[in-house]
Amino acid sequence: MGGENRQGGLRLWRNARLVTMVEGAAGLGIVEKGAVAARDGLIVYAGAEADMPAPFGQGAETIDCEGRWITPGLIDCHTHLVYAGNRANEFEMRLAGATYEEVARAGGGIVSSVKSLRAASEDELVAQTLPRLDALIAEGVTTVEVKSGYGLDLDNEKKSLRAARRLDGERQVMIRTTCLAAHALPPEAKGDKDAFVDLVNETILPAVAAEKLADAVDGFCEGIAFSPEQVARVFDKAKALGLPVKLHADQLSNLHGAALAARYGALSADHLEYTDEEGAAAMAKAGTVATILPGAYYFIRETKKPPVDLFRRHGVKMAVATDSNPGTSPLTSLLLTMNMGATLFGLTVDECLAGITREAARALGMLDRTGTLEAGKSADLAIWDIERPAELVYRMGFNPLHARIWRGQ
Amino acid sequence: MGGENRQGGLRLWRNARLVTMVEGAAGLGIVEKGAVAARDGLIVYAGAEADMPAPFGQGAETIDCEGRWITPGLIDCHTHLVYAGNRANEFEMRLAGATYEEVARAGGGIVSSVKSLRAASEDELVAQTLPRLDALIAEGVTTVEVKSGYGLDLDNEKKSLRAARRLDGERQVMIRTTCLAAHALPPEAKGDKDAFVDLVNETILPAVAAEKLADAVDGFCEGIAFSPEQVARVFDKAKALGLPVKLHADQLSNLHGAALAARYGALSADHLEYTDEEGAAAMAKAGTVATILPGAYYFIRETKKPPVDLFRRHGVKMAVATDSNPGTSPLTSLLLTMNMGATLFGLTVDECLAGITREAARALGMLDRTGTLEAGKSADLAIWDIERPAELVYRMGFNPLHARIWRGQ
Ligand SMILES: [Zn+2]
Ligand SMILES: [Zn+2]
Repeated sequence: MGGENRQGGLRLWRNARLVTMVEGAAGLGIVEKGAVAARDGLIVYAGAEADMPAPFGQGAETIDCEGRWITPGLIDCHTHLVYAGNRANEFEMRLAGATYEEVARAGGGIVSSVKSLRAASEDELVAQTLPRLDALIAEGVTTVEVKSGYGLDLDNEKKSLRAARRLDGERQVMIRTTCLAAHALPPEAKGDKDAFVDLVNETILPAVAAEKLADAVDGFCEGIAFSPEQVARVFDKAKALGLPVKLHADQLSNLHGAALAARYGALSADHLEYTDEEGAAAMAKAGTVATILPGAYYFIRETKKPPVDLFRRHGVKMAVATDSNPGTSPLTSLLLTMNMGATLFGLTVDECLAGITREAARALGMLDRTGTLEAGKSADLAIWDIERPAELVYRMGFNPLHARIWRGQ
Repeated sequence: MGGENRQGGLRLWRNARLVTMVEGAAGLGIVEKGAVAARDGLIVYAGAEADMPAPFGQGAETIDCEGRWITPGLIDCHTHLVYAGNRANEFEMRLAGATYEEVARAGGGIVSSVKSLRAASEDELVAQTLPRLDALIAEGVTTVEVKSGYGLDLDNEKKSLRAARRLDGERQVMIRTTCLAAHALPPEAKGDKDAFVDLVNETILPAVAAEKLADAVDGFCEGIAFSPEQVARVFDKAKALGLPVKLHADQLSNLHGAALAARYGALSADHLEYTDEEGAAAMAKAGTVATILPGAYYFIRETKKPPVDLFRRHGVKMAVATDSNPGTSPLTSLLLTMNMGATLFGLTVDECLAGITREAARALGMLDRTGTLEAGKSADLAIWDIERPAELVYRMGFNPLHARIWRGQ
């Protein structure tokens, strides 16, 4: 992994307003006259400038932020960023009145992404992914989760994950990879889902784990994908291999995926449009984060919203992510994602901002390393030309990023 | 006005795929192996490279487009881009559960934009507007309509329009200004709408016309704004002053604004969520363009969609625009606007692209000068890193612009 930035001495950003996102603080954990000091790529101080211990000011390379706002570097905790081609043609066909069957007959649907990915070399995958990654980075993103799931056989799942792993050598960004082999059934499986789960468990996951290609394991629990029983088998295997799990759950129907994820202590359950109170309660108890994906809801014209009130009532933590993918969410803006979370689901400004910082870090199991402005964490910062944090959520198609700091540089 | 680019000889973009948007051509008027030649800021040829008369290739400065797509420079035909401050605080309050009354009591609503604009100098207005204009330009926009309407008295309406007029001295862009004095009632009018229309007609519009500060006159016909009778008075005055008209019509209720606009031969009627068949038929007959504004629909969580099928059936031309404004559409991306038009209203890819080029030019009365790739028009081009035009509509938060050409440069 990149970012082991050990050069450089003390750096200090002063005269700033901080969105610290510190756990337990009120709202955004705002510090009005704040400073952040970093050394060796880590935050050594974040708080009121007046309270800063003198040593952090002495001999530091100092940046006057002129009252600008600093947030933690943004985190996109759910993406399918590595893919080949795109599915604009399907989008066009559907708008012109084609049915899903007609799109499928024309070679569309997830099968088309599988075909394109299998045909692409690892180098091509990296090259096609970088513009999307650059779009995220341009808005202050410093950590991105990337799933496989368009390979669906050993070689192509490994190729996807290797391409994802290479991204942080190409750009200054932290990448977390997730093996989503249980995403869909490939054509050669001829409809036999159980046999495909055997392949995932006996061949793909062990190889991916042995080569340390994935930081977590994910699945798609849905009528059109895998049953709760099949997902449970995949999760059992992941646990045996020592990998944490996450789940695409209850997006199109309520198969009780949220409760299933909670039962396995999943880092997160994602989508959740159809999750019920039992699912929310189970997630709260297990500490499983609810990852809200408004881009997919918007793009597929879903009408059932995730039960945000239930999550609030039960104290389920909520992350917000792009779900960037070619079929249901060709979205590469975390700022726009927040706007959709607020406008479409009624998330508050504070919930949106927590969702792409602290809670996104939690959904990746990385809250000890990133997601808030606190001493000991990575000095990954976003500095904004705004007058209040709500502007980051309110605007659509506008990027007020002033500077992005990666590991203190 | 800027852009009188008279230097430079012949320039040629070859090996390109063209979206010509020529009237009457099928779909987007695509030319697969195309070329565009320009001289003195005007297109002198746009079409098949093989058919290009030899003189256009001789001695031209030639750009190999390597198969990239060229569209006309984009046109945002409905914006309120000149304003001061923003209303992120209201957005935040509403998400936190405040009612409209509570927001109003806290000084929110359009009154807050009027107050901010009146307090800002002309220079401040220009400075605050430029980042928004830059966001549009970054996506290939070459023409922008800008309305007044937060001044609401003589000095401040003139200040707004002067600030708008100055934008094309600051950036390479064509600006069209519209006087929207009949936008809302200012606090000092104390509820007397008729007296305010007197002020508009007897003071504001004559001065604006005399100083040539506006290219058109607009109004807001709605229960919360002005009645059809009041708008008709404003339109009578505009006609007498020789200025074309447009109308914010039928956004929140059906006051038959579309038919009213048509009766006055308006360039466009805009919003139109509540327009009925009679209105659509009247617009078709009058040649009044329907300007579709999905950003406002999305942002205010409207549920009634504009009657796109009626417009199609009656042959009403449809433009698509951002409605960029601080209260109901803080949107500065014409690409995202197209995605919203397609996703929320079912506009086809071809309708979206026509809506921000040819039909947007028509809505500004400028189809003779811009909006299509045709000899004699301004050489304002957008060159894209895409494989098919549908990608411009399909993606969200991604900008594939390769280059923007302004008046041939
Ligand atoms: Zn996903
Ligand atoms: Zn408007």
